[in-house]
Amino acid sequence: MKITLLQIDKTDQSFVEEAVQEFSKRVARYNPFEIITISISKNIRSKSIPEQKNEEEKQILVQLEKYESVFLLDENGKEYSSVEFSQQLQKQLNSGKKSLCFVIGGPYGFTDSLRKKYPLISFSRFTFSHQMIRMLFCEQLYRAFSIIRGEKYHHQ
Amino acid sequence: MKITLLQIDKTDQSFVEEAVQEFSKRVARYNPFEIITISISKNIRSKSIPEQKNEEEKQILVQLEKYESVFLLDENGKEYSSVEFSQQLQKQLNSGKKSLCFVIGGPYGFTDSLRKKYPLISFSRFTFSHQMIRMLFCEQLYRAFSIIRGEKYHHQ
Repeated sequence: MKITLLQIDKTDQSFVEEAVQEFSKRVARYNPFEIITISISKNIRSKSIPEQKNEEEKQILVQLEKYESVFLLDENGKEYSSVEFSQQLQKQLNSGKKSLCFVIGGPYGFTDSLRKKYPLISFSRFTFSHQMIRMLFCEQLYRAFSIIRGEKYHHQ
Repeated sequence: MKITLLQIDKTDQSFVEEAVQEFSKRVARYNPFEIITISISKNIRSKSIPEQKNEEEKQILVQLEKYESVFLLDENGKEYSSVEFSQQLQKQLNSGKKSLCFVIGGPYGFTDSLRKKYPLISFSRFTFSHQMIRMLFCEQLYRAFSIIRGEKYHHQ
């Protein structure tokens, strides 16, 4: 099963980029993993927040057609522990589906219609920037695989 | 009021160090802020997990004598939203106390006796390494001040 992280706009904080590189390399040792970045034009970024979110939604939906299983990372979603997340991942790996996509929204999050369409995962009740969430996600994905494999990275 | 982050062992991941530097500089524009690092000797690190945690506890308690208000960052603690955390911070700033310390434990977390002694704050049901929590904390502290000041960093 191929795992994809779909994100909006290039990462501009170097520590986020470094962490994402580090953990995505480690994930790729366990499973095919790719990151796809949707670029939103500056024209759109000067519009109102709802207009920005609608444009992001449109572009996300085009991308999501390819995937059999989709989760949105959204602070109003279900909160997992690392072990529960690894169990959810194991379930996906066992499902026979060929593709799994996790989506991190833009700076203002997802539209309500996207939120209703897909299951939501929350990383924290705290709000983190859509850039920082990228490295939290990659670290947890790596941690989840290390839990599934019974390796030493995760301390209970 | 002086705010301190007390942590165990030097940061060895460069992206964590870079993020901590970035956000602690920003916090320091709002409020005096320092980071104190307790070093645990390699001798201790070769002992059992309970022995390591007990040694960490001893050294944490020596440090904590100086502070009027203390919170431990622990995954079993109370979960806040960013806005709730900023309200808790405001309460502390208004309390008339002179010093506030947040503590991040070692690789295996805190002893039960420390957990019982101080209020606990949880950043996520997900487990993150004790190094990554440092940057999550510094970012949230900066975000909390930006919320208190009504500045633009935080999007609801």
